[in-house]
Amino acid sequence: MARILITGAHGFIGRYLAKSLALAGNSVFGLGHGTWSPLHAQRWGLVSWHNGGVDIPNLRLIQQQFGTVDIVYHLAGGSSVGAAIANPREDFHRTVSSTIELLEWLRLEAPKSSLVAVSSAAVYGAGHIGQIAETAKPNPFSPYGHHKHIMESLCISYCESYELKVVIGRLFSVYGEGLRKQLLWDVCSQLEVHPERLLLGGSGNELRDWTAVTDVVRALSLIHTEANPSPKVINIGTGRGTNVRAIVEGIAQAWAVDANLEARIEFSGKARAGDPQSLIAQSEQLAALGFEWQKDLMEGLSGYVRWFRSESGVRS
Amino acid sequence: MARILITGAHGFIGRYLAKSLALAGNSVFGLGHGTWSPLHAQRWGLVSWHNGGVDIPNLRLIQQQFGTVDIVYHLAGGSSVGAAIANPREDFHRTVSSTIELLEWLRLEAPKSSLVAVSSAAVYGAGHIGQIAETAKPNPFSPYGHHKHIMESLCISYCESYELKVVIGRLFSVYGEGLRKQLLWDVCSQLEVHPERLLLGGSGNELRDWTAVTDVVRALSLIHTEANPSPKVINIGTGRGTNVRAIVEGIAQAWAVDANLEARIEFSGKARAGDPQSLIAQSEQLAALGFEWQKDLMEGLSGYVRWFRSESGVRS
Repeated sequence: MARILITGAHGFIGRYLAKSLALAGNSVFGLGHGTWSPLHAQRWGLVSWHNGGVDIPNLRLIQQQFGTVDIVYHLAGGSSVGAAIANPREDFHRTVSSTIELLEWLRLEAPKSSLVAVSSAAVYGAGHIGQIAETAKPNPFSPYGHHKHIMESLCISYCESYELKVVIGRLFSVYGEGLRKQLLWDVCSQLEVHPERLLLGGSGNELRDWTAVTDVVRALSLIHTEANPSPKVINIGTGRGTNVRAIVEGIAQAWAVDANLEARIEFSGKARAGDPQSLIAQSEQLAALGFEWQKDLMEGLSGYVRWFRSESGVRS
Repeated sequence: MARILITGAHGFIGRYLAKSLALAGNSVFGLGHGTWSPLHAQRWGLVSWHNGGVDIPNLRLIQQQFGTVDIVYHLAGGSSVGAAIANPREDFHRTVSSTIELLEWLRLEAPKSSLVAVSSAAVYGAGHIGQIAETAKPNPFSPYGHHKHIMESLCISYCESYELKVVIGRLFSVYGEGLRKQLLWDVCSQLEVHPERLLLGGSGNELRDWTAVTDVVRALSLIHTEANPSPKVINIGTGRGTNVRAIVEGIAQAWAVDANLEARIEFSGKARAGDPQSLIAQSEQLAALGFEWQKDLMEGLSGYVRWFRSESGVRS
């Protein structure tokens, strides 16, 4: 049983990770932005939640209060391509400035702790066809992707020069109950108002590697053992691509009480800024650790729709 | 005649660049750390010197006082591999945080200005043999090199997303009168105390592309025309490699009043941290702009020794 700090624990993936690690018997502490009552944070598995930026003073406070942790999961950072394009400096500070602070604190005050840095397939960017190996040339083309790549570079730099133990996990398209943005949220939000018609950006042919958050946090719990001064990058993806149109159709089916009432789906055909055509993981490294994906995608979509309806008070 | 802002104008290269651009008839403004009397700054060609960090408030102040500039030369940043290893967070802020501030100010308040971002051959890092093309895979292996590479990535990110006009110049081993650190300074400083014996780190076989600062600033004055929303990287190097031993011997020769009194030279054989074996530019892009290198290396070393002696009050 380990002592674990999660930065960004208040976020969508962070809270699932906290709960999963706590259920496995670990002591989990959280740091990041977001207001959380102690009771609510405890329900998500946290011994304590520290609402503040990821910087050396806050990291030191947690260390003084609870001692040095064995593992840090670094999830704090920007979480939206669109928001990063609108305000790149803010995205930079969330993703990059938080990382330099965390690395410097590890270097000086917790050099034996392992770091699991959670990055994104956005570092691969455009121009990839089929499964993308971890060794593929990064080609980010949004500020969001560039900043995630810069975050990785800083981790690698600290590994090389100071022998910190790091592993980098690159997430693909993570979905699940509680995610209040991105495609699934947008589709449900439209259906709630206009159940007969969906109008979406892009072509619908964009390929993504959809991963259920419950599976993703199991994968993250596993890869910390790979943290090492020769930093490894591990794709957290299934290896299967499903296009956006199929996802939207799956949600529309789950939404309609009657197949005759299914929404008509239209795509603008206009690519969204910063949106690559295809992001699918080569998943062999993760599989070699004994990991198996469990959640069926269409079941996951149905579950999401049920959660969305129960949240918004819509009756099915 | 252009209106030009130089960040880091107080540094070794910055002040040569300021003088050179001012002599060519431009109006040159400076921002960065360092105490400079107005008269002294004027002697280096500056209309005004603003002593402060490269951040949006300071950039805005200069813009309010003097108007929008046509070109920004971004030289502010870390300038020592050893200092970066000792304090990576400080080097990060000097090199990276200054750049995000500058880019954000350009995006929001001076989008038509051109940016010449001055980077380093340290982004190439280890493992290169012979001339290194601008397209070679970056492989930095010190925090200094990583941060310069991150600086470049930010520039490219802003180009791609916001169509800023940028060109990146990668400097190699710049030397010249006024440089108070690195190999030439260390050798002269040793000779001043022990003119009979030199003890140096490394093997002496490290190859570098030595470039005189007077030539380098002419090259920088030239490449701003290449600033473009499809950012180009241009090596500022001669294409010739000279090993450290030859440089040290050249200085020792210039130092000794009598060939019989030349210093005995010893190398530790132990590589210095963050020090690649070979960094030599492929210089075709710069040559294609019509640039010619002028300064002879051994003449340059003699000039350096004369300057060092006159500075330190040693009589030859």
